[in-house]
Amino acid sequence: MATVRLWTDAEVGDDPRVKAVFDDIRATRQSDFVNNFWRALANDPATLERIWASVKEVMVAPGALDPLTKELVYMAVSINNSCPYCVHSHTAAARAKGLSAAQYAEFLSVLRLASQTNALANGMQIPVDPEFLGG
Amino acid sequence: MATVRLWTDAEVGDDPRVKAVFDDIRATRQSDFVNNFWRALANDPATLERIWASVKEVMVAPGALDPLTKELVYMAVSINNSCPYCVHSHTAAARAKGLSAAQYAEFLSVLRLASQTNALANGMQIPVDPEFLGG
Amino acid sequence: MATVRLWTDAEVGDDPRVKAVFDDIRATRQSDFVNNFWRALANDPATLERIWASVKEVMVAPGALDPLTKELVYMAVSINNSCPYCVHSHTAAARAKGLSAAQYAEFLSVLRLASQTNALANGMQIPVDPEFLGG
Amino acid sequence: MATVRLWTDAEVGDDPRVKAVFDDIRATRQSDFVNNFWRALANDPATLERIWASVKEVMVAPGALDPLTKELVYMAVSINNSCPYCVHSHTAAARAKGLSAAQYAEFLSVLRLASQTNALANGMQIPVDPEFLGG
Amino acid sequence: MATVRLWTDAEVGDDPRVKAVFDDIRATRQSDFVNNFWRALANDPATLERIWASVKEVMVAPGALDPLTKELVYMAVSINNSCPYCVHSHTAAARAKGLSAAQYAEFLSVLRLASQTNALANGMQIPVDPEFLGG
Amino acid sequence: MATVRLWTDAEVGDDPRVKAVFDDIRATRQSDFVNNFWRALANDPATLERIWASVKEVMVAPGALDPLTKELVYMAVSINNSCPYCVHSHTAAARAKGLSAAQYAEFLSVLRLASQTNALANGMQIPVDPEFLGG
Repeated sequence: MATVRLWTDAEVGDDPRVKAVFDDIRATRQSDFVNNFWRALANDPATLERIWASVKEVMVAPGALDPLTKELVYMAVSINNSCPYCVHSHTAAARAKGLSAAQYAEFLSVLRLASQTNALANGMQIPVDPEFLGG
Repeated sequence: MATVRLWTDAEVGDDPRVKAVFDDIRATRQSDFVNNFWRALANDPATLERIWASVKEVMVAPGALDPLTKELVYMAVSINNSCPYCVHSHTAAARAKGLSAAQYAEFLSVLRLASQTNALANGMQIPVDPEFLGG
Repeated sequence: MATVRLWTDAEVGDDPRVKAVFDDIRATRQSDFVNNFWRALANDPATLERIWASVKEVMVAPGALDPLTKELVYMAVSINNSCPYCVHSHTAAARAKGLSAAQYAEFLSVLRLASQTNALANGMQIPVDPEFLGG
Repeated sequence: MATVRLWTDAEVGDDPRVKAVFDDIRATRQSDFVNNFWRALANDPATLERIWASVKEVMVAPGALDPLTKELVYMAVSINNSCPYCVHSHTAAARAKGLSAAQYAEFLSVLRLASQTNALANGMQIPVDPEFLGG
Repeated sequence: MATVRLWTDAEVGDDPRVKAVFDDIRATRQSDFVNNFWRALANDPATLERIWASVKEVMVAPGALDPLTKELVYMAVSINNSCPYCVHSHTAAARAKGLSAAQYAEFLSVLRLASQTNALANGMQIPVDPEFLGG
Repeated sequence: MATVRLWTDAEVGDDPRVKAVFDDIRATRQSDFVNNFWRALANDPATLERIWASVKEVMVAPGALDPLTKELVYMAVSINNSCPYCVHSHTAAARAKGLSAAQYAEFLSVLRLASQTNALANGMQIPVDPEFLGG
């Protein structure tokens, strides 16, 4: 259970700001499914509008990185932040964008390697080489 | 300063296990530069060998993900783990693998968006939609 | 399920140390409800006594910060530590202390902004300005 | 050293987007000092504009929470994310907004208590009481 | 629900690589129980083999630290990473290796103390004493 | 630089509360060295007294776990919290309590293994086996 109400479609009704975002989510994704994240944000229309605008701009619009790469970065952050909701939703999104079993396995290998070497570098407090500080 | 000695080349001398790894790092990277991470690991040759073997296998060998994507995942983990050494070394590695200013800016945008939505999802303890649990 | 037994009132029975703390929790909060956190701590009466004493001193007694501000700091830490129990219990506590919907929305905005700028500052390893180090 | 160039005023020169933000930072804060965070963001004017707009809206404009409370939440997040830049800059900001020694000591006490109880709740995996899930 | 299939024994069937690891887990632990962690890893036999080999080498084989001490370090990391699966499985493992109620209570006390002092040291950004940097 | 003043012995002077703790630190450790952590806490005598009392009780007094094991748990938490001060001071403390190079290498191996498996378990959101929930 969330700390806030998850708005059903009936509760959204004709609320103009929430309905406009939900409509745009459905149109953009070409799916009737609106996941709980947005139903929680509906409690604060200004945040709902802003986050959806950011998702469209960063994750939907074409950019300098391909969509799957961006989902992998998103998954890495979400796993590291121990956010179950985020891990599930972005792993599903990555699969919808074509993540193969081999790519997922390799992603997890990078994650494992980074987790290990981060622990070693922080554990031994290794000083940054001047060569990396060139700028 | 690290919690352990950072082995200089003179200290490595002819130590067979450490020298073999340092030689392979130099040959693989086609550079004489061996960064502090490996000089710290030299205190425990078994770990040095294992981590270098993993780096070669996961980050150097061709795989299902391209090398730059893997560095971006590595950077995301390192930033989230607040590991200064890792952030500096892997941002430098990503640049050596072609990271452009536009790609870096977009990477940081994904990082920002993920950090925000993770905070919101964990903050409101949003339950995972059954649709994401299909498997 | 917890890793330890959650003591029911029947199990507490007349245990003098546990019962004294539970009685004081009820008297202080003017409520019969003793939440699971304390029922888990009951396995180690010394810790139970100490943590309850700290909660009374830091969160209940009047101090230099008002009670709602302290709950918001507690919530921020709990969200960042990905502690579901703590997020739920302290969001409930904040509401009991008067947290309005507008305040909660603004709290989440600060949390989002801090999460973003933390990611950017750690991501780019921005050096601290000497002006901030004055002391 | 940052992973990116920190723009000096001379480097900003007449760049219209960066200069506009720097001018607004100076006007808003009534101070000539522009800290490194903004000088790093100058590498990506779109992000510079967006983050500054968010800071003005969330931290500068009047809202449902008072300015000092918001800085304390910001500090709590920054400490938990182990972000040295953020801890220094927001502790300085809190002091500029009137944080007293007694308030700072009490903030640290809440932080300590939350850190402890988070560790206990996650350590014993205490289940959330149904009473907290009312909604 | 996991993001991947948890392989039942029937699904493992005669898959040579997965079956070999599951057989070795059962033989090593002298128990028929194979927990979900390994059933999830079965999706990627190379990772399954590698992680099981590491667990045997680090946690099962005799070493410089006794088995219970190693489980306590594992528990501390798992609690700090907010990994419910890891906390439950390694607390169970520690109990199987003899963790007493008094030792568990003391472990939690160390965890609490470390969590507090970490928050204070990072919160006040205390500089490392030169005496600790001797090497 | 810390966010607070680090009290020199001259500044402590005859302040009765601070001097009493510093004297006890010196007597307990049989060393004249008082590290920066305590010099920072001196700004708030009540916290200084409480934390020192906790350190004496948890880390100095004999308990159910041996002193070196407790330092290893402390180190694991400190590394995971990315607390440079804490890593340096507790690694030094562990060495003073007899940590050998072989034990340190093995500790780092456990840390690496736990970091990896935590990432995998959270990354794949593996559900806790009912067998671990027995209680």
